[in-house]
Amino acid sequence: MKETAIKLLEEHKFPELRALLETQNPTDLAAMLSEFPEKLLPVAYRLLPKELASETFVEMDADLQENLIHAFSDLELQEMLGQLFVDDTVDIIEEMPAAIVRRILKNTPPEKREIINEVLNYPKNSAGTVMTVECVNLKKDMTVSEAFIRIRRDGVNKETIYTCYVTDPGRVLIGIVSAKKLMLSKPEEKIENLMETNFISCKTTDNAEDVAHLIEKYDLIALPVVDAENRLVGIITFDDAMDVIRDETDDEFMKMAAVSPLEDSYLKTPVIIHAKKRILWLLVLMISATFTGMIITEYENALTALLVSFIPMLMDTGGNSGSQSTAIIIRGLATGELRLRDYLKVLYKEFRIALIVGVTLAVANAGRLWILDKLYYHTAGGMGKEMIVVGITLIGAVVLAKILGCTLPMLAKRLKLDPALVASPVLTTLVDAGTVLLYFSITVLIM
Amino acid sequence: MKETAIKLLEEHKFPELRALLETQNPTDLAAMLSEFPEKLLPVAYRLLPKELASETFVEMDADLQENLIHAFSDLELQEMLGQLFVDDTVDIIEEMPAAIVRRILKNTPPEKREIINEVLNYPKNSAGTVMTVECVNLKKDMTVSEAFIRIRRDGVNKETIYTCYVTDPGRVLIGIVSAKKLMLSKPEEKIENLMETNFISCKTTDNAEDVAHLIEKYDLIALPVVDAENRLVGIITFDDAMDVIRDETDDEFMKMAAVSPLEDSYLKTPVIIHAKKRILWLLVLMISATFTGMIITEYENALTALLVSFIPMLMDTGGNSGSQSTAIIIRGLATGELRLRDYLKVLYKEFRIALIVGVTLAVANAGRLWILDKLYYHTAGGMGKEMIVVGITLIGAVVLAKILGCTLPMLAKRLKLDPALVASPVLTTLVDAGTVLLYFSITVLIM
Repeated sequence: MKETAIKLLEEHKFPELRALLETQNPTDLAAMLSEFPEKLLPVAYRLLPKELASETFVEMDADLQENLIHAFSDLELQEMLGQLFVDDTVDIIEEMPAAIVRRILKNTPPEKREIINEVLNYPKNSAGTVMTVECVNLKKDMTVSEAFIRIRRDGVNKETIYTCYVTDPGRVLIGIVSAKKLMLSKPEEKIENLMETNFISCKTTDNAEDVAHLIEKYDLIALPVVDAENRLVGIITFDDAMDVIRDETDDEFMKMAAVSPLEDSYLKTPVIIHAKKRILWLLVLMISATFTGMIITEYENALTALLVSFIPMLMDTGGNSGSQSTAIIIRGLATGELRLRDYLKVLYKEFRIALIVGVTLAVANAGRLWILDKLYYHTAGGMGKEMIVVGITLIGAVVLAKILGCTLPMLAKRLKLDPALVASPVLTTLVDAGTVLLYFSITVLIM
Repeated sequence: MKETAIKLLEEHKFPELRALLETQNPTDLAAMLSEFPEKLLPVAYRLLPKELASETFVEMDADLQENLIHAFSDLELQEMLGQLFVDDTVDIIEEMPAAIVRRILKNTPPEKREIINEVLNYPKNSAGTVMTVECVNLKKDMTVSEAFIRIRRDGVNKETIYTCYVTDPGRVLIGIVSAKKLMLSKPEEKIENLMETNFISCKTTDNAEDVAHLIEKYDLIALPVVDAENRLVGIITFDDAMDVIRDETDDEFMKMAAVSPLEDSYLKTPVIIHAKKRILWLLVLMISATFTGMIITEYENALTALLVSFIPMLMDTGGNSGSQSTAIIIRGLATGELRLRDYLKVLYKEFRIALIVGVTLAVANAGRLWILDKLYYHTAGGMGKEMIVVGITLIGAVVLAKILGCTLPMLAKRLKLDPALVASPVLTTLVDAGTVLLYFSITVLIM
């Protein structure tokens, strides 16, 4: 498909190319255009019907958009911007260099420019920045058939017509009514009698992720956004909510693995940026390992090769037990399944889990040592003491790790810090040092 | 709100309670009912209007549903089941014990029972198991006004009326048309001229997660599901797709943290199940640590307290460098951003990232040792050799970890294994053993 299109383009067979491109949806078309030769891209883009062209533009990467805007005449730019929703225009503006932003704003009609500036001023990650201002507005004294006339008049340029918003003369949102309800009602029925007055809404300043979770929780197609005086200013649609949740999950995932979130895709991000995003945490870890190292040199006299050989296993077990708990708690906090007031319940639960896990591991380890001794080490004492020392350390390390592993993320959240970002480095430092200290103390005591 | 409701219930003020419950949406109502005293739950539930009652039932936890079904008469059960969509009925059946499943099927009309049985037979995690069979069906020779009559007749019982499906007499799907297009078109226009024939669909046997990603990618409200002969059998709506993605992400997140995914919520899962879900990986880790331990005892003669003190830092750095890469690659594979054929690009990129990260860490470590020596150790040689040995090991460990960290998940995917589940244990084993072996070899060589 892509090859055919490029061939048609290079042979200047424009009517055939246009026919081919028209059959594509905007998402696929944007992907296809990104592989066209850069010089020919504006030529191909100009073949598209207006609506498809603007929908495709929205789906493109910023560098491609920039390339196209450079090729546009002011008239072409005006035409394209005229087709765009405000939220998409804002998304584009945020990615463009200043010169292009000025060109975009210059070619936007004043009233739309005013709305764009307002949206650009909402706090970062707020509902205001992801909302769409285009939505269908009804009045409570309209009838269903009047509502349909309004939808037919305004609907073409609205992002969704499936939920309509009823406002009073002061633009205060007083109810919502679904297109389904309108379609299934009698034409002479009043909107007032159909509208749902007990609806869910959010403020422009609300956190976008919280709002996205509301949309997910209540299976909404769109959620209205109101200002401090409850006046309707826009809506957030389910697809924008899905994007917010996707970005949030990506971030969370990366932070759990101790990588700062990437702004661009993996392959497009340069090596040096990748290295920067990963190095910070490894450096923190190195500093933290200083304490563990110091503890080990303190116990110089107790060190034997056999004792040292258990350190990797003990540290891995402690570290992993802790991050199991951290991951579960962070995920639970993020999805809203766990709340801070559940802390004591969680702590008690993790403590009991740690005991079961720790004891099982201690027993398994005793078995492992018994076999190892028979096959490999052939010690005089049969490793009885090692089984006890390592076993007790295992139980202690798992309990310590799980208690810290559930406490740290909840504490971070309580202090309004990011649980995923704060918990891991502190956890590793404390668990590593704690495990080694515990191990040597017990060794000295028993051996 | 909840307290008021329970008080009204206990004082038998049913009309007031009914008025209060009616204002709630199904999601919140289900949460509220779950905190009602168990004995009074059926009383409160019976107060709800039919439609709200069934919508609320769907949102409840399985144990609450079971409790209610026990309280229902056959007639009540029939009424409730009559209101449910097939996909919701199937979800309920899958959670219920056999006796209740028999009661549910007995009280379902034969034609619906047949569809339910069909859905129950689709392969696990297939599109067929998450689809809704209720959707609006149009014919291509209908006019827009005829289509509206059909929607008004059938629409009440359909999960979405916002996308309508056009089928030929053999039920083969030939086009789709949005309610928006219908509402904005002239009443006498033929459906044939309005329908989109170049639409995205999936098969009943397709993987549900892949289909959910399609819905997310193309911002669809619903996606049609067809059988092997392209006959329309159902649709998957955006909210069900969001649920599938949520479950997938949860699973992926847990696996990355080496926890088998939980079936129930954190607080509801018993301690012993939690312990089981976490212990397997810790056991694998313990066995794998056997090799690391053996390597250490092999180098018994080279061991000094100072050398041993670096082991925790080296292992943590290796382990974390590796899991950074693994997490990024697994996430990239899951979201479709990376494909197997990108392997060489990824490998080359990770190699260069590893060199930058490794060298930076080696330099930072030299600085750390210099400060440590001045403040704490006061060695004769000023730790020059240690800086070199540990520095080279750091670079080697990071390179090894990042190469394995990107290779293992892609190899697992290539072998059709789960990248998240396979990559971590193998990675830890190889990186731990590799790092320690490298460290001692370089020590013996240089010291």
